[in-house]
Amino acid sequence: MKTLTVALGARSYPIHIGAGLLARGELLAPHLEGRQVMVVSNETVAPLYLDRLRPFLEAYEWDQVVLPDGEQYKTLEYVNRIFDALLAGRFARDATLVALGGGVVGDMAGFAAACYQRGVPFIQVPTTLLAQVDSSVGGKTGVNHPLGKNMIGAFHQPRCVIIDTETLDTLDDRQLRAGVAEVIKYGLLRDAPFFAWLEEHMAALLARDREVLAQAIERSCRNKAEIVAADERERGQRALLNLGHTFGHAIETGLGYGTWLHGEAVAAGLCMAAELSRRLGWLSETEQHRIVALVERAGLPVRPPAALPPQRFLELIAVDKKVRAGRLRLVLLRRIGEAVLTADFGADLLRESIAACLAGGRQ
Amino acid sequence: MKTLTVALGARSYPIHIGAGLLARGELLAPHLEGRQVMVVSNETVAPLYLDRLRPFLEAYEWDQVVLPDGEQYKTLEYVNRIFDALLAGRFARDATLVALGGGVVGDMAGFAAACYQRGVPFIQVPTTLLAQVDSSVGGKTGVNHPLGKNMIGAFHQPRCVIIDTETLDTLDDRQLRAGVAEVIKYGLLRDAPFFAWLEEHMAALLARDREVLAQAIERSCRNKAEIVAADERERGQRALLNLGHTFGHAIETGLGYGTWLHGEAVAAGLCMAAELSRRLGWLSETEQHRIVALVERAGLPVRPPAALPPQRFLELIAVDKKVRAGRLRLVLLRRIGEAVLTADFGADLLRESIAACLAGGRQ
Repeated sequence: MKTLTVALGARSYPIHIGAGLLARGELLAPHLEGRQVMVVSNETVAPLYLDRLRPFLEAYEWDQVVLPDGEQYKTLEYVNRIFDALLAGRFARDATLVALGGGVVGDMAGFAAACYQRGVPFIQVPTTLLAQVDSSVGGKTGVNHPLGKNMIGAFHQPRCVIIDTETLDTLDDRQLRAGVAEVIKYGLLRDAPFFAWLEEHMAALLARDREVLAQAIERSCRNKAEIVAADERERGQRALLNLGHTFGHAIETGLGYGTWLHGEAVAAGLCMAAELSRRLGWLSETEQHRIVALVERAGLPVRPPAALPPQRFLELIAVDKKVRAGRLRLVLLRRIGEAVLTADFGADLLRESIAACLAGGRQ
Repeated sequence: MKTLTVALGARSYPIHIGAGLLARGELLAPHLEGRQVMVVSNETVAPLYLDRLRPFLEAYEWDQVVLPDGEQYKTLEYVNRIFDALLAGRFARDATLVALGGGVVGDMAGFAAACYQRGVPFIQVPTTLLAQVDSSVGGKTGVNHPLGKNMIGAFHQPRCVIIDTETLDTLDDRQLRAGVAEVIKYGLLRDAPFFAWLEEHMAALLARDREVLAQAIERSCRNKAEIVAADERERGQRALLNLGHTFGHAIETGLGYGTWLHGEAVAAGLCMAAELSRRLGWLSETEQHRIVALVERAGLPVRPPAALPPQRFLELIAVDKKVRAGRLRLVLLRRIGEAVLTADFGADLLRESIAACLAGGRQ
């Protein structure tokens, strides 16, 4: 087992990474405040993994909320189901929520924990690669709105993150690849050696080589933990983690949540950011080709869906959390391993860039 | 104009109290971050007072959300209407929400501000006595759930509180009296001289004597500001502000939100806390009589509704944010001017106390 720390003073917490950790209740126990535990999971994950937590849970007063599986259920309405269960079971302010599932479950359980009785503790137990390398770490919680992705939420840090790499054994290939998009993102935005390592190990990663997967998760979490520790509330460098996400969120919102997986939309978004960065003269053509090639080798989309023409795309990205004083800001690339948040691009160049990416776009 | 400060380090903010402050845009302007302002109000208050803010608002990109009036609309569903308006109008993370109305509007607008894009600034402009003396100060925001009052929410401090005492001119008598319940509460829990002052000035207060009203508001806000500054997140003494509220919330939830006003339920709750405190041998009979007499002179209920028998009452108070390790804790009175948070009372005494209060209870 490897343990990393997200250093946030009194709210610091560990990330445990290893095989078989779900069965190790002693990792969770120190982070519970009271005797009540509510497990939040979904219809896919609960039947597979809830039993592994059961021996640990039996020592507590516990219950479960099982949500339907999919980004389309990441709404206020379904978070309200968590509140229903907590109140019906008389869960108190010292109860702990445990998020057992992918990014959707983690975001919703975390948001419910942030708001229930104005804040109760929660623990992340991510079971998808995407949640393990990205969404379970850092305390961003929330839900989608029909007009914008992740527009309603809270910063609420978990008490710990338990990554059991064995849960990836049952993850389908499409979900695995979606997680790889966020892994590639870390290499692009601040870790060029990691990007090069991924170029070398992509085949092994997709073949679920245990050692390669564990290394990719650890390196990703280390990058994420460093950024969150330096800028918890996204006043500065944390925004760089949104590389590819403004474009990606537009795809998810525009197509309807759940049509493309989040990681698939981010993958296309990374390539769109690369295109605009190259047009600005920042990124070399060679580097752009390396990026697109790696995303393609991961089996991920390198272009936005043809269903979203440039004008619609521009409307969608105008609703973004990084808009300030009426100006859209984007995370773009100076080079592989160096991202910047900038409003320093012309509207025409952005439009041309989107149009170019769409040309020949996947349906 | 009087100005108090809620001292919370970098998040400190002023409370301005005076006649005609709604027209003084220069009080609001320094607290706006960007150029977008969303006014949240209700169907009663907006037609009366929105025009007074208009000259100030015209210098900004602004819009309004007008909610129906009443505690029964303090729900996630109606908060979602605020999100709808913000997203439809493309309000960004540097937009500011302005809550113009009573406690319900302030709690909902504050919660929307806490969650929109994971947190935007907001300003409280309370127009009821209850909101002016209590709910607009201190950053408690949230909504009700059918199973429990204020069970979903966030701590999110406003950037400033503007109390225009002229707005009380249009407040109906029932609402005014409801606000007086929270004023009495401050005297009871930590300010015996204020309680004595209220005994002397109750008639003038109810007659809306401007000077007496202004003094009551200022003294209440000063008490609230001191407590919040000392204990923002309710880890200790802030819980004392819930004197009468565990009983009061049970009344509101049990009867259905909006049947009794919040202040009416708190008034009966103060008398119930006094009854139990007297039975514990803490409060003298004389002091209990003074409390009940003052609440009665304020035209407020001194007993819980007969519709809630003791068993139902006990079930309702078991769902309370002050429950810890399975034990109910209540704010009770050592004497007028001294409250304590305690689990140190027998279940039988609590039940007898509720039954005694109900005997002859108002329908």
